[in-house]
Amino acid sequence: MRASVLTATRTIEIEERPEPEPRPGEVVVRVSSVGVCGSDIHYYRDGRIGPFVVDAPLVLGHEAAGEVVAFGDGVDRHAVGDRVSLEPGVPDFTCRLCLEGKYNLCPNMRFFATPPIDGAFSEYVAIHQAFAHPVPDAVSDDAAALLEPLSVGLWACRKGAAGPGSRVLINGAGPIGLVSLQAALAFGATEVVVADVNKQRLDVAAASGATGTLNVGDTPLEDAGIDADVVLECSGVPEATTAALYALRPGGRAVLVGSGSHDVALPLMRLQVHELQVSGLFRYANTWPMAIELVASGRIDLDRLVTGHYGLEQTEEALTVGMRDPASIKPIVSPQT
Amino acid sequence: MRASVLTATRTIEIEERPEPEPRPGEVVVRVSSVGVCGSDIHYYRDGRIGPFVVDAPLVLGHEAAGEVVAFGDGVDRHAVGDRVSLEPGVPDFTCRLCLEGKYNLCPNMRFFATPPIDGAFSEYVAIHQAFAHPVPDAVSDDAAALLEPLSVGLWACRKGAAGPGSRVLINGAGPIGLVSLQAALAFGATEVVVADVNKQRLDVAAASGATGTLNVGDTPLEDAGIDADVVLECSGVPEATTAALYALRPGGRAVLVGSGSHDVALPLMRLQVHELQVSGLFRYANTWPMAIELVASGRIDLDRLVTGHYGLEQTEEALTVGMRDPASIKPIVSPQT
Amino acid sequence: MRASVLTATRTIEIEERPEPEPRPGEVVVRVSSVGVCGSDIHYYRDGRIGPFVVDAPLVLGHEAAGEVVAFGDGVDRHAVGDRVSLEPGVPDFTCRLCLEGKYNLCPNMRFFATPPIDGAFSEYVAIHQAFAHPVPDAVSDDAAALLEPLSVGLWACRKGAAGPGSRVLINGAGPIGLVSLQAALAFGATEVVVADVNKQRLDVAAASGATGTLNVGDTPLEDAGIDADVVLECSGVPEATTAALYALRPGGRAVLVGSGSHDVALPLMRLQVHELQVSGLFRYANTWPMAIELVASGRIDLDRLVTGHYGLEQTEEALTVGMRDPASIKPIVSPQT
Amino acid sequence: MRASVLTATRTIEIEERPEPEPRPGEVVVRVSSVGVCGSDIHYYRDGRIGPFVVDAPLVLGHEAAGEVVAFGDGVDRHAVGDRVSLEPGVPDFTCRLCLEGKYNLCPNMRFFATPPIDGAFSEYVAIHQAFAHPVPDAVSDDAAALLEPLSVGLWACRKGAAGPGSRVLINGAGPIGLVSLQAALAFGATEVVVADVNKQRLDVAAASGATGTLNVGDTPLEDAGIDADVVLECSGVPEATTAALYALRPGGRAVLVGSGSHDVALPLMRLQVHELQVSGLFRYANTWPMAIELVASGRIDLDRLVTGHYGLEQTEEALTVGMRDPASIKPIVSPQT
Repeated sequence: MRASVLTATRTIEIEERPEPEPRPGEVVVRVSSVGVCGSDIHYYRDGRIGPFVVDAPLVLGHEAAGEVVAFGDGVDRHAVGDRVSLEPGVPDFTCRLCLEGKYNLCPNMRFFATPPIDGAFSEYVAIHQAFAHPVPDAVSDDAAALLEPLSVGLWACRKGAAGPGSRVLINGAGPIGLVSLQAALAFGATEVVVADVNKQRLDVAAASGATGTLNVGDTPLEDAGIDADVVLECSGVPEATTAALYALRPGGRAVLVGSGSHDVALPLMRLQVHELQVSGLFRYANTWPMAIELVASGRIDLDRLVTGHYGLEQTEEALTVGMRDPASIKPIVSPQT
Repeated sequence: MRASVLTATRTIEIEERPEPEPRPGEVVVRVSSVGVCGSDIHYYRDGRIGPFVVDAPLVLGHEAAGEVVAFGDGVDRHAVGDRVSLEPGVPDFTCRLCLEGKYNLCPNMRFFATPPIDGAFSEYVAIHQAFAHPVPDAVSDDAAALLEPLSVGLWACRKGAAGPGSRVLINGAGPIGLVSLQAALAFGATEVVVADVNKQRLDVAAASGATGTLNVGDTPLEDAGIDADVVLECSGVPEATTAALYALRPGGRAVLVGSGSHDVALPLMRLQVHELQVSGLFRYANTWPMAIELVASGRIDLDRLVTGHYGLEQTEEALTVGMRDPASIKPIVSPQT
Repeated sequence: MRASVLTATRTIEIEERPEPEPRPGEVVVRVSSVGVCGSDIHYYRDGRIGPFVVDAPLVLGHEAAGEVVAFGDGVDRHAVGDRVSLEPGVPDFTCRLCLEGKYNLCPNMRFFATPPIDGAFSEYVAIHQAFAHPVPDAVSDDAAALLEPLSVGLWACRKGAAGPGSRVLINGAGPIGLVSLQAALAFGATEVVVADVNKQRLDVAAASGATGTLNVGDTPLEDAGIDADVVLECSGVPEATTAALYALRPGGRAVLVGSGSHDVALPLMRLQVHELQVSGLFRYANTWPMAIELVASGRIDLDRLVTGHYGLEQTEEALTVGMRDPASIKPIVSPQT
Repeated sequence: MRASVLTATRTIEIEERPEPEPRPGEVVVRVSSVGVCGSDIHYYRDGRIGPFVVDAPLVLGHEAAGEVVAFGDGVDRHAVGDRVSLEPGVPDFTCRLCLEGKYNLCPNMRFFATPPIDGAFSEYVAIHQAFAHPVPDAVSDDAAALLEPLSVGLWACRKGAAGPGSRVLINGAGPIGLVSLQAALAFGATEVVVADVNKQRLDVAAASGATGTLNVGDTPLEDAGIDADVVLECSGVPEATTAALYALRPGGRAVLVGSGSHDVALPLMRLQVHELQVSGLFRYANTWPMAIELVASGRIDLDRLVTGHYGLEQTEEALTVGMRDPASIKPIVSPQT
C-alpha cells in the first residue's frame, strides 16, 4: 500500500509499505478521509511538538475514517464493510486511569501520528475494534474523520460544564474553536461569542451559529463587556488566556484547549474572589458515541468545515495550504485517490 | 380588582377584591396571562389534592406573567412597566435548604394556588421581587406564563442528567410531557420518544420534535424495544411507571414527574443489576434564568402549546375545556379581559 | 491442586484438579484466605440465585486473597511473591460501559463463583493482573480477602453520596451492613444508626463505631424518629425498604444494597415531595485502591469481622456455620490448610 | 458596651459604644471568643488588604462565638441563652447566586471586619438569625469561634473533591493549613502531607494527624516525590503555588486558598497533559452544619490550635503576638474579660 511519510522536516515522501496485519482484537480499515490537524502541520514544519520529537520516518494524520476490510482474532463487533470513524489513541484498557473511565490519561496510550506511532495518511491502518466506531449513513466520510476534532470541542464543553442557557466565550476561531462553537450550541448554550483577529474566520463562526463575534484586533477582550459562564480558550495565546479569565462571571469555568509550552499568568485575586475554575484538557474520553449522535441527527454539521480535498500524493499540499490561504479551515486527504 | 375564586367544589365566582398592597421587597404585577394547570383542575373538581384541602375560598392559577405596576420598600431590581414571569413559590430564603440552593424543598414555602395561598386568576398579584423574573420582548405574555410548566420539564431533565446525545423516553404526552420533550431537546437529547394512548397528543409530540412516538394502547412499552438513558415519567400511571423502568439501559435514570398518591412497584433485581436510579421531583429550583434564555433564543417554543384564550369571567370554561375537548392542551386565562 | 466443589445442592466435594494455567495478562495466585458470602450459602442451599442456576459442578468463593506464584505473557505489574487481593469480576475492558468507568455493568463480566465461572475455594486461581491488587503488609490475608465485601459498602456510600457530617441509617447488621457501617464512618459520616432485629449483631455494630443502634423488633423504624441523609438498605426485606424511605430527610438518598427478587413499594408522593433518590447497586467499580488505603491506614478494621477459620476440607462447615450460630459473621476458608 | 477599634494603622483603641439593636430577623449575641485571623493582622498593620481600605474606624474580628441575649422581630429559631457560632458574612439571600446556593459569591455580601462593616472584637454584635448557628455543649466557645477558619478548610476540601483514600498535599502550615489538614482527614484522606519552612508548625501538623511533613527549606517540593490527588495551596507564595502543580497526579485538583494580589504562573502543558484543575476559593458556603457535626463528634479538634487567650483590652497584643512568637498559632480574644 501507499503511505505518505514525513522523512525529514518539511519533507513528505510517498512510500510503498506492507498492508497492516491485524493483531488480536484489531480491525484493518481502508482509509477514506483524513483531516489535517495543526499538530500534523507542526510536526511537518518543526519536526517536533514540545517534548515529542520526530527522529524516524513518521506517517502523520490522526483524524480518520474508512471502511473495515479485515479483522484479527477475537473481533466480534465488526463486519467487513462497516463504515467507521477512528478514535486515534488506544490506551492499555486496564490501568487504574482506564478503569476509572479516564483513558485519555492512560500512561501507555498509543496515539496515531505521535512519535513513534504512525498515523493515517496511508491506504490502510489497523486499530483496536473498540476504537473503530461504526457510523450511520447520515454521517459522511469527511464528517466521520472530523469526529476527532469535534471530540475535543465536546470534551471542552464537558470540562467547562456548558449546558442549556449557558453563555460561552470561545477564544480563537481556528478549527478547534469552530467545532467548540458547534459543540457549545449542541450542549444547549444560548449565547456563544467567538473572538479572534481573523475576520474571515469570524465570518465562518457567525455563519456557524455564533450569537456574536468579537474582533479582538479592534476591541480588546477586556473592553467587550463579556460576562460568560464558560470560556473555551482555543487560541493558545498567553495574553488572550489571561484576558479571558476577566470575561468570566462569578463561579465561571475556563478550559484551556489551545496548547503551547508557555506559562499562563493567573490573576490570583480574581480567581479567588469569583471562585473561578481553570481546567486543562487532554484530548477526550468517551466522546464518540455522543459525537456520532449529534452529527447523525443534524445537530452538528462538520462538512461545512471542509475547505479542500487532496489525494495522498498531495499530502504536502494539504499540510501547507493553510499557510498560503487564510480562508482554509480543514483540508482533507483522501488516501484512496 | 376582579378575581375568579373557587368558592366550592366545581364553583368559580368572580369577586371584587382590594388590589394587593406590596410588602417590603414585593412588587405588584398586573397579570396578563395565566396557564391552566392540571392541579387547578383537580382543586376545581375535587376540592383537594392529596393532603392539600381547599376549605376556604381560593384563587387558582400559578402559571402567570404580567407587568410590574407598583413596588414595596426595598425593591431595587424592578421598574414600573417591566414585563415579568412569576415563579409562583416563594420560600423563606434563609433556612438550611434555601441556603443550599434547594429552595423548592423549603418547609416554609408559600406556593400560589395551594391552600391557603391565593393564585393568579385575578387582575393583580403581589410577589417577592426575586420571583418576578424580567423577560425580554422575544418572550410573549403566554410564553412568559408557561415558563412555569417548562420549569418542571427542565428540572426533570436536570434530575435525570439528560445531555447531548441522550436517549430519552417521555411517558405521557400531556402538557408536562410536551414541555419535557422540548426541554430534553434543549438539553441536547438526540432521541426523544414520547409514549401515550392519546393519538392527538402524540401528533403534537411528533410536531414538536419528538424523534419517535409510541401509542402504548397499541404496543405495550415493554414490547417497544426502547433502550433509554433517561425516562421522564409524566403519566402518573403506576403500571406505566413500573414498565418504564424496563426501558432503561444500564446506568439509566428515571425521574418521577407525574404525581399521584399511590405506591410505585420497583422491581428490585432490575434496579440493582442495571444500577438504575429513580428520583422524585418537586417543582423546580433556579430554572427561570435558563428557561428565559431557551425561549428567548427560540430553542423552545411555548406558544405552540396554547390551545385557547379565556377572559377572567370564562375561568370556569378554561378549567373544564380539557374534559370536553381532547385536543385541548393549554388554555390561557387573560385576567385583564 | 485441591478444590472444594459444589457438585449438587447441599453437597460439597473436595476434588483434585489441574493447577490453572495463566492466559496472557493473567497471574496465578496461591489462595490464602476466602471469605464466605451469603451468595455462596444461597448457591449451596438452593442451587440458584434468581436467574443464576448451578447446573454443573461449581467452585464457590469470591472474597479472596493470596500470593502471586506465576504469570502469563504480557504481565508487567506483578512479581512472584506479591501479596494480592482479588477483585473477582473481570470485565471485557473495551465495551462502552467499561470505557466509561462503569465496568461493573459490563455485559461480558466474568464473575467468580457465578455459574459457569469457578470461584476461589481452591488452592490456586488465575485472574487478570489488573484485578489482583497488591496489598501492603499492614493488610492481613483475611482483611485482603474482605476488601471484596468492603467494596460493596464503599460503593454504596459513593452511590448515596455519604460524606463528612452525613447522617446515615443502615438497615440490616449482617456482614454487608457492618462493612457499610465502617465505610460510612470512613466517608466522614458523623451519625450512623444501624437497625436490625438481631441483638448480637447490633452489639457488634455498636462496638464497630455505630453512633446508635435500633432493634426494629422492639421499635418500628417509623417510630424511631430517624432523619437521615442517606439510607443504606442492606436487609433486603421489602417492608423494611419501604419504611426506610420514611426515615430520609428532604433531598435524601436511599441505596438498595440488599438483594431479592421481589418488588419494592415506593410511596410516590413521599418520594416527590421530599425529592428522594433511590439507587440500585450492582457490586462496585474502582473501589480497591480506596479500600486498600482505608484498611492499611487503620481507618477500617476488617479483621474484627472474622468469626472463624476453616481448612479447605471444612468448606461445608464454613458454609453452614451461620445457620447454627447466630453470632457468626464472617467465616474464612484457608485453602492451603 | 466596649469595643476594640482600629482607629488608625497599628492603633487599637477601646471605645464605649451603644449595644447593637437587632433589626428584624437578627439576634444580638454576647461575644465569648473571637479568633485572630491573618486578615485582622493585615488590616492592623497595613490599613488595607488589596482593594479593601480602612478609611474609618473599624472593629476587627470575624471568627466569633457567643450567646444569644436578644432578638428582633420575626426571629423564630433562637431562644435567649442559645450558644451560637457566627458565620460572619451575611448575603442578601435573594440574588441569583444566593438562590443557587452560592451565597459566598453574593455581590451584596456584608462581611464582618471588612470595611465598612464592623467585626466582633466587642462585647455584643447583631447578626441575622440564620447565621448564628447553635452549637451543642460538646463544642467549646473557642472551638465555636474557630468553626470559621475550619469552614475555609472544609470548603477547600469540597472544591478539591478530597475523599476517602485521597492523597492530599497541604502547602503551608499556618492556621488555615492546619485546619485544612484536619478537614482533609475528616473527608477520609489517608495520606496528608504538610509542607512549610517553619519547623515548629510542621511539628504541630505532625501532632495533628499529618501522615507526613516536608520542610521545603531543606527539600524543595519538586524533589520530594509527592504524587497527590489534591493540593490545598495555603501558603499564598507564588513560587510554591507553581511548584505544587507539579506534585499533582493526572486528574489532580489544586485549590488556591492562600491569598495575595500577585499572578500565579500556570505551566500550561503540564496542566493539559495531566488534565489538572485549578480552583480559586472565596470563603465558604453551607459549611457550618458539617463543621458543627465534625467538631461535636470529636472528628476535628479545634481547641488544640488555641495558643493564647486575651481580654478585650489586650486585643492589640493578640494581634501582634504572632510577629513576636513563631509558636503562636491562634490567639483568642475574649471580649467579656
